[in-house]
Amino acid sequence: MTNEFDVDVVIVGAGLAGLTAAWELRRSRVRVLVLEARDRVGGRTWTEQGPGNTFIDHGGQYVGPTQTRILALAEEMGVTTFKTYGAEGDRHVSVQGRDDVSQVAIGPAIERFERMAAELPLEAPWTHPRAIEWDAQTVQSWLLAQVPDPLARALLRVIIRAVFTAEPDELSLLHLLTYIRGAGSITLLTQMDGAAQERRFHGGAQTVANRIAARLGTDAVRLGVPVRRIEQARTGALVEAGEITARCRRVIVAVPIPLAERITFAPALPGERAQLHQRISPGVTTKLHWVYPTAFWRADGHSGRALADDGYISVTFDNSCPDSDHGVLVGFVEADAARAFARLPAAERQRVALAEVVRVFGPRAADPIARYEQNWLEEEWTRGCYGGNFGPAGWTRYGAALRAPIGLIHWAGAETSPIWMNYMDGAVRSGERAAAEVLAALD
Amino acid sequence: MTNEFDVDVVIVGAGLAGLTAAWELRRSRVRVLVLEARDRVGGRTWTEQGPGNTFIDHGGQYVGPTQTRILALAEEMGVTTFKTYGAEGDRHVSVQGRDDVSQVAIGPAIERFERMAAELPLEAPWTHPRAIEWDAQTVQSWLLAQVPDPLARALLRVIIRAVFTAEPDELSLLHLLTYIRGAGSITLLTQMDGAAQERRFHGGAQTVANRIAARLGTDAVRLGVPVRRIEQARTGALVEAGEITARCRRVIVAVPIPLAERITFAPALPGERAQLHQRISPGVTTKLHWVYPTAFWRADGHSGRALADDGYISVTFDNSCPDSDHGVLVGFVEADAARAFARLPAAERQRVALAEVVRVFGPRAADPIARYEQNWLEEEWTRGCYGGNFGPAGWTRYGAALRAPIGLIHWAGAETSPIWMNYMDGAVRSGERAAAEVLAALD
Repeated sequence: MTNEFDVDVVIVGAGLAGLTAAWELRRSRVRVLVLEARDRVGGRTWTEQGPGNTFIDHGGQYVGPTQTRILALAEEMGVTTFKTYGAEGDRHVSVQGRDDVSQVAIGPAIERFERMAAELPLEAPWTHPRAIEWDAQTVQSWLLAQVPDPLARALLRVIIRAVFTAEPDELSLLHLLTYIRGAGSITLLTQMDGAAQERRFHGGAQTVANRIAARLGTDAVRLGVPVRRIEQARTGALVEAGEITARCRRVIVAVPIPLAERITFAPALPGERAQLHQRISPGVTTKLHWVYPTAFWRADGHSGRALADDGYISVTFDNSCPDSDHGVLVGFVEADAARAFARLPAAERQRVALAEVVRVFGPRAADPIARYEQNWLEEEWTRGCYGGNFGPAGWTRYGAALRAPIGLIHWAGAETSPIWMNYMDGAVRSGERAAAEVLAALD
Repeated sequence: MTNEFDVDVVIVGAGLAGLTAAWELRRSRVRVLVLEARDRVGGRTWTEQGPGNTFIDHGGQYVGPTQTRILALAEEMGVTTFKTYGAEGDRHVSVQGRDDVSQVAIGPAIERFERMAAELPLEAPWTHPRAIEWDAQTVQSWLLAQVPDPLARALLRVIIRAVFTAEPDELSLLHLLTYIRGAGSITLLTQMDGAAQERRFHGGAQTVANRIAARLGTDAVRLGVPVRRIEQARTGALVEAGEITARCRRVIVAVPIPLAERITFAPALPGERAQLHQRISPGVTTKLHWVYPTAFWRADGHSGRALADDGYISVTFDNSCPDSDHGVLVGFVEADAARAFARLPAAERQRVALAEVVRVFGPRAADPIARYEQNWLEEEWTRGCYGGNFGPAGWTRYGAALRAPIGLIHWAGAETSPIWMNYMDGAVRSGERAAAEVLAALD
């Protein structure tokens, strides 16, 4: 294969955002080259084959009915969806030792979040009259001041962790509100039926990226080549990735925002963009899977769902696959729990996590036929999942830099989408938006 | 000059931290190589010659009596100090339109800050029983809750901006307290006589770094070579910087923390360290200098000092030089003001800044014989000054990673010093500490 390219557009990163951008451009007969640091495409979607026709989604996996752009793209690629298991049945709950939280009064807080969020301008939340005020405090400060009931705060904390893979003190209140605004509501963020966790992809979420890459062809998607340098002049840009050099007219950078710092830009990026790279930080999560001969919990009338704040795993779901007799449980270890969990020796992690599953689902959970652990923080080309979060004073100071092109360089990635930021749908939308910017510029 | 090296220790970055480490090691007959991305040494200290025997310190410049390690190093290098001008005389103040703030009741807040700070364990503030609580809120949240008087809050904001080059909503309360703990008191941080702004260096602050580099010799300090890759194995490390490759036994990385993200580490860094790079962000400041035929303000009994929150410049000082008849004023544009200032066209920046100086010092200030502007955020190899600040949830989650060596790699830099973090003294202390770690390891 040649290592010298002359194309219209180079796309940095073969996650969903980058591949969507490439596909949109290809559709318009623009010559594209996608350069990917890893030896696979899909970014934060990554599917592994498990035993007995199961597949294991180590990364993004859920999709909901309002996530219309990822659904449209999947349909175009012939990837179909199925309903997530466990929407019905018992749910195990243990929050502050309580097993019934349906009476915990979090309604008023939720309503206030949604009322504030609804006021935000979708494309520019930092321009809201109260943006500075909301961005000056952590979600934790807001909870302490506004939610007197400790049990309500504890439940809200579990929910917030599950959405952001970050603790309430890591998040700006404006960031939380921006997220809600982009998703539509807290219900849409947190629920299954009709919401963001409603469906999954046959074959796993990475299938979408794999199919786009296949259609683009191996000439247009090069793996294992971290981009190190992007030089731009008036007449075009030069992208360097190891042995590869590519001349082009425009560049789309579609990597998690802090990772853009690893690329040398010539001329150097403006200060505002450079500080953006330091102000947004991905959440921290480890995703655990256990495969069993059957989904034994269903016979007991159990959904496979659990919510807890007394161990490492905060949330579990029935993650079984439609064409397999096996049962699959997934457990999410999030934020502070994920940081502490990562410090345990590997064997200890397996032991304590499985013990938590057994505590909830009984002794039959003790003998999985396969187990998987994925800590996204340790991935050199990801450094955290699900997506980037702003602490205080991020959105109001650097929000305007998120999507602003710099010369011939355009920015994509799930973090840059106003709608479903940090979700697969946001990634696809960002790729479409960046492609549209480039098409307009090339005209 | 050769481009292949085989030394004991490679030091990445020729700021004060890196050069101090190199000098300490050289003293113990350890073979060192310092690799610096810029075409000069000194990092965030940088001195330019001005007209009429003046010198212009674009970066760090002040030193105080308790900053004993930078003072000792300067003395060893034969660099002497002089008292900062303007400790006496009138001071111009305009905070919320008030010209007398001596009666503003900030004493109780200052006392509370100092009382909380005094409780922190110097080396590990994140272990304090209330660390999580203090790290969960911004300084702004604390001020709003604890300081009812808006004028007192406004004055505290001006002081905080001058110390951190960041707004109160960008800072974790624990970060502010950690800073105070490491400096000793707010008085030591903010005052001139007996405190951090008491003295300056003859010839400018960069002189210290220049002299260390000269003693190390040009063979041991290579300029213009950004380190791109550090590979470590059990037997040693390999450092690559463009044409240069250097084998060594240990590496000291002495660059501003977010910039460490630009180096490829093989094997990849642990996740905790990678997230640290995303959780600490340098302040934002532009430093302005004007040189006049004489220090005309002194004849009017004015100190040259001003403090204001009604323009771009928050603080000015008499920055004249001892062996020159000229007068020099320095103005600091900080945090939000610096971000807004940077968006103005260059000519407009000059115009509005000088207009502010004229408003304070009268029409004689309108005609400087030289003017200088230094925006550290735009420096590719700095990306902000004075130093790194943690927002909420940084110290408690990633503080332990600040100095923890990773295999053969040790970390220096002003951000890593418990004492006088982010100051020249902190940089020197960090270099000494990293050198001691390496010496112990090489034994």
